[in-house]
Amino acid sequence: MKRVKCTVEYDGTGYSGFQIQPNGKTVQEELEKALRTMHKGEHVRIIASGRTDAGVHAKGQVFHFDTSLAVPENRWVRALETLLPSDIYVKQAEYVEESFHAQFDVKEKEYRYYVRPVRSRDVFRRRTVYHHPRNLDIEKMQEAVKQFLGTHDFTAFCSAKTTLKGNKIRTVSRAELNVTGEELEFIVRGNGFLYNMVRIMMGTLLEIGEGKKEIDTIPRALAEHNRRLAGFTTPGHGLFLWEVSY
Amino acid sequence: MKRVKCTVEYDGTGYSGFQIQPNGKTVQEELEKALRTMHKGEHVRIIASGRTDAGVHAKGQVFHFDTSLAVPENRWVRALETLLPSDIYVKQAEYVEESFHAQFDVKEKEYRYYVRPVRSRDVFRRRTVYHHPRNLDIEKMQEAVKQFLGTHDFTAFCSAKTTLKGNKIRTVSRAELNVTGEELEFIVRGNGFLYNMVRIMMGTLLEIGEGKKEIDTIPRALAEHNRRLAGFTTPGHGLFLWEVSY
Repeated sequence: MKRVKCTVEYDGTGYSGFQIQPNGKTVQEELEKALRTMHKGEHVRIIASGRTDAGVHAKGQVFHFDTSLAVPENRWVRALETLLPSDIYVKQAEYVEESFHAQFDVKEKEYRYYVRPVRSRDVFRRRTVYHHPRNLDIEKMQEAVKQFLGTHDFTAFCSAKTTLKGNKIRTVSRAELNVTGEELEFIVRGNGFLYNMVRIMMGTLLEIGEGKKEIDTIPRALAEHNRRLAGFTTPGHGLFLWEVSY
Repeated sequence: MKRVKCTVEYDGTGYSGFQIQPNGKTVQEELEKALRTMHKGEHVRIIASGRTDAGVHAKGQVFHFDTSLAVPENRWVRALETLLPSDIYVKQAEYVEESFHAQFDVKEKEYRYYVRPVRSRDVFRRRTVYHHPRNLDIEKMQEAVKQFLGTHDFTAFCSAKTTLKGNKIRTVSRAELNVTGEELEFIVRGNGFLYNMVRIMMGTLLEIGEGKKEIDTIPRALAEHNRRLAGFTTPGHGLFLWEVSY
């Protein structure tokens, strides 16, 4: 058996999330179906870096699986391309040590979230950008976004629906807000993310930008571990799992 | 009655083209349905600058209609927004002279066509860019594209399925091929376009880039009025009606 590490891009619009579940189509299901075909009906279980929610996209999700096939490293991408639907693309595949684990070995993840704050729509970006037409104080948001940097207890930025048992202390190594044309791009990188964390961070930044929340909201919410001090949860369709590093 | 001129953007993916037809959903149908609702069930006929084919998109299609409603000019956009599906967006509406005609008064149209010539896919652009992974001589294509400029008989660049009775002489005032990231962008502007003209121009440029056709293909095809000398018809989904000027 050899272990294969894959990087996959997907448009999450048509899926109930990454991870297999009783109801609704999932990305994992499509990937395992393609691998099962390649393996002549044998079930191949994949392990991803983590799940993504319904409607959330990925530019660089990572997963691994074990195979008994003698496929040359450079043939996996093309073989999977012919078996996968057009909204899922395995862009890279390589053989790795058997000790490699796509979930446990994650060093950092990077997410990006896109917002269109202007009145007009962009029909071509409607599935990948959150349309939220408001007057925003961008400079204030760019000031506030830096407050996420560093090691904090992110309880205030975690959905109550979490099933996490361990602590909620995470380290954010990159947090920036860029203006790209008519859109805002929120980039956040860290050693771990809680349930809905990026979407609550984004909602908090938007409420600060709108003047609904004060500039000290983020440090207060972090210090008080209070979900109600943070902002709303923005929708999944503006979110991309951008990169996973090991 | 007052005449309204509208500029509309649409994602053509889900439509059998712009113009109403017996089978399949059309953009015109959706627009007329929204206007009928605004006009309390009264049918409102729209006249567009021209049709677009199945799967073809628009950034700036233009149409006009006549109304008896006393809607302030700046309220049309929002009113239509609430009535239209998310893949159609009327971005501008203004009252014009009753003599204005969206089809007959067109001075020029601009189309853009997008190609991804590299091996890797981009799932987020799969509906709006033609994936055609080939080794292309871009400089040769940029040389060739200029040969479309000027006034020519474009018979060789017109589908045999055309029902056009008049002559096929058209003037192209802008023709360029740009490299934008991993994509090619073909921009063409002119006083009129024949059936499938832009898609055949694009196919011809690609065949020249691949070395399947000589650099003098375009002037020869134009001079000989021979459809077979020109290239293949690229698919509709890479094409955008970008702008209509009056």
